[in-house]
Amino acid sequence: MINPNDPSLHSWIDIAPESDFPIQNLPFGVFETAERGPRLGVAIGEYVLDLYAVAQFGYFEDLELGKKMPKVFRRRSLNQFIALGRPAWRAVRQRVSELLRHDNPALRDQQEAMRECLLRQDEVQMLRPVKPHNYTDFYSSIEHATNVGTMFRDPNNALLPNWRHIPIGYHGRASSIVVSGTDLRRPNGQRKAPDATAPTFGPSQQLDFELEMAFVVGRPTQLGDTVPVQNAEDYIFGLMLFNDWSARDIQSWEYVPLGPFLGKSFGSSVSPWVVTLDALEPFRIPGPVQEPEPLLYLRQTGEHNFDINLEVAIAPEGGPETAVSHANFGLMYWSMAQQLAHHASNGCNQQVGDLYASGTISGTTPDSLGSMLELSWRGTRPVPLADGSERKFLQDGDRVTMRGFAQKDGVRIGFGEVTGKVLPANSLSL
Amino acid sequence: MINPNDPSLHSWIDIAPESDFPIQNLPFGVFETAERGPRLGVAIGEYVLDLYAVAQFGYFEDLELGKKMPKVFRRRSLNQFIALGRPAWRAVRQRVSELLRHDNPALRDQQEAMRECLLRQDEVQMLRPVKPHNYTDFYSSIEHATNVGTMFRDPNNALLPNWRHIPIGYHGRASSIVVSGTDLRRPNGQRKAPDATAPTFGPSQQLDFELEMAFVVGRPTQLGDTVPVQNAEDYIFGLMLFNDWSARDIQSWEYVPLGPFLGKSFGSSVSPWVVTLDALEPFRIPGPVQEPEPLLYLRQTGEHNFDINLEVAIAPEGGPETAVSHANFGLMYWSMAQQLAHHASNGCNQQVGDLYASGTISGTTPDSLGSMLELSWRGTRPVPLADGSERKFLQDGDRVTMRGFAQKDGVRIGFGEVTGKVLPANSLSL
Repeated sequence: MINPNDPSLHSWIDIAPESDFPIQNLPFGVFETAERGPRLGVAIGEYVLDLYAVAQFGYFEDLELGKKMPKVFRRRSLNQFIALGRPAWRAVRQRVSELLRHDNPALRDQQEAMRECLLRQDEVQMLRPVKPHNYTDFYSSIEHATNVGTMFRDPNNALLPNWRHIPIGYHGRASSIVVSGTDLRRPNGQRKAPDATAPTFGPSQQLDFELEMAFVVGRPTQLGDTVPVQNAEDYIFGLMLFNDWSARDIQSWEYVPLGPFLGKSFGSSVSPWVVTLDALEPFRIPGPVQEPEPLLYLRQTGEHNFDINLEVAIAPEGGPETAVSHANFGLMYWSMAQQLAHHASNGCNQQVGDLYASGTISGTTPDSLGSMLELSWRGTRPVPLADGSERKFLQDGDRVTMRGFAQKDGVRIGFGEVTGKVLPANSLSL
Repeated sequence: MINPNDPSLHSWIDIAPESDFPIQNLPFGVFETAERGPRLGVAIGEYVLDLYAVAQFGYFEDLELGKKMPKVFRRRSLNQFIALGRPAWRAVRQRVSELLRHDNPALRDQQEAMRECLLRQDEVQMLRPVKPHNYTDFYSSIEHATNVGTMFRDPNNALLPNWRHIPIGYHGRASSIVVSGTDLRRPNGQRKAPDATAPTFGPSQQLDFELEMAFVVGRPTQLGDTVPVQNAEDYIFGLMLFNDWSARDIQSWEYVPLGPFLGKSFGSSVSPWVVTLDALEPFRIPGPVQEPEPLLYLRQTGEHNFDINLEVAIAPEGGPETAVSHANFGLMYWSMAQQLAHHASNGCNQQVGDLYASGTISGTTPDSLGSMLELSWRGTRPVPLADGSERKFLQDGDRVTMRGFAQKDGVRIGFGEVTGKVLPANSLSL
């Protein structure tokens, strides 16, 4: 059996060299057309492979995937497919890889099947790929945590005492996670300027993005069970880009002592394609040295970070796009395996589709910061845009787009993008 | 049409005067038997009325409740029934009230139907009543917030500056919400004594309960929509007792700056019967005067608190029970309507089944505090139990039981109980 990550593979479908979706990627998503209703699909070049159609034509027939198999491909989320387990994910990805390989005529030479199974991405509507039963946001970039601590607390003690011991995280709002392309309304909320005597209610004046990645839990646990850090990656299906939109003024007034709430819950955006951990295998790198050494339940050896290049761009309404940040997921202080092992260490049960975000990903340089808060250093150094305007925070009409890819040996494993535009706040009619 | 809350109503079923479930209550829940699978039911005295059986016998036939009606009564949660909307809840409660009324022979005199429709509560297994898509925990008792602030911060400035302006809350973990009767394993976790140089990992030494009530959202909103405080109660289906188990040592080490996480997510318990807001109508009382007056989006007139007596009892393994606290839900500073209006004020979409807990409910006297943290004043004044032992926090084998009822004009609207036993922590095998 050929490794579907093999850099020498190529497809009978024409794929541009800069495409995020070569035959080595094969990410999973959910799409919809007026005729077909919701379907699971795999991205390949500029196309989507309709997995339900592929199953209907019998191409999965000899895979032993259980009785739910054809049905799971016409659902509104990946959850039920993911629940089949890693052997099923691998078998499907392997078979799709075989079907798309340049020298395999099975689908290539079947005109009718090919027409039914392949749709252009620009002719389908992508849906939110998973139904996240639970959503947790971590805070695992040491650069980001240091920047925030420097700005809001003490530059000499920027990291709080627990930070190097715990992958700090908090429960977020699952209902308001939307797929890329959904525009987000600027939230109203309570905020109080430091010198004001009382709070006011109105549109957030400090609307921000946060550049993050999120992983999807692929294997459930029972209440009381834990996930050993050594095996934690077995519980991960794949990764997406994640924009954790944030209203800084609402957040800073509300968050003591119980954490972020309405400053976050008005919306978070995910990219539509889930890149499997399997596809990212070639991009493993060691994480930063952890000092002090973590407690035993978080201690791991080997390479558990992933070298993924990230970009954030802002385009004002009708204006050109400006790339405002370039960061890398490989810098994360706490790995996904450590986040998950920690999350389950108290017996908290994990559900298929749970979505765990990394926290803002910032680098070490001024052009690699993952939020406007950091890029504009709390509004003190405005960020210039290509149209000549500048930004401290986001303005109405601004479109924020995040992109990401890993690249090695001529293979580019991309995530596509997560994009969304800022709509004006609701008017206040109280 | 007779008001189902009328104190003069009585049923042909024998109901003890001290029962939580007279004909004026009629709370909804989900039960299961080996023969029937999951069913929706209504509690009446010591019995459960099987709503699917009632529908099968045609007693709901003339109610215009839509095509989903029979099916929604054999689900594993109330969610789909609740999604039918308030007119449906009311029509079903009204019809059940009619069927159970002493002078109505329709069910009373039909031996076969009666046998099929009525089961003894001790012969069925109660399930978690709702599937909570999202769970939020508020912090709305001013007495509790003042106690915590006094203990951990400054007794002279116990309430944080935002507390009287915002119904402070945080997102909690939905997956680990379990029904009464589920025993809870003491969590392992990281904790650090103030004088220790480094944290350790092991069983929580400060396991606690929190006496709370929770309400269930009954009407959804779209992302971007808000819920005016004046109409917020229209979005509430009903209430339950809620035990927000807490590991204080884990919580205090992890919670800065992003709030409670693993100190809470190992489990929360709900009572099995959801008492409708309709049944609680007679128990409305004004809340405390709010000073300063809340901002306009939180301002309400009329009576939006509910006079519900609450009790917490602890029974050591094999030992007698001791009531350690008596509190009242009517004291809450922020009403449920204000909590919900605040929650949706930034456009966060609400889902049917969302579960919003009150936060610990404490009164003004030492015997009305809603947690061991407060009852033992951070471990400094141990709480005596009937067996001669004393508690600073919970020990393995301790059973915690919370009960609640409203009473007026000879009618007692009870919540039953939420109970759970503390199991020893998992041994550490790392």
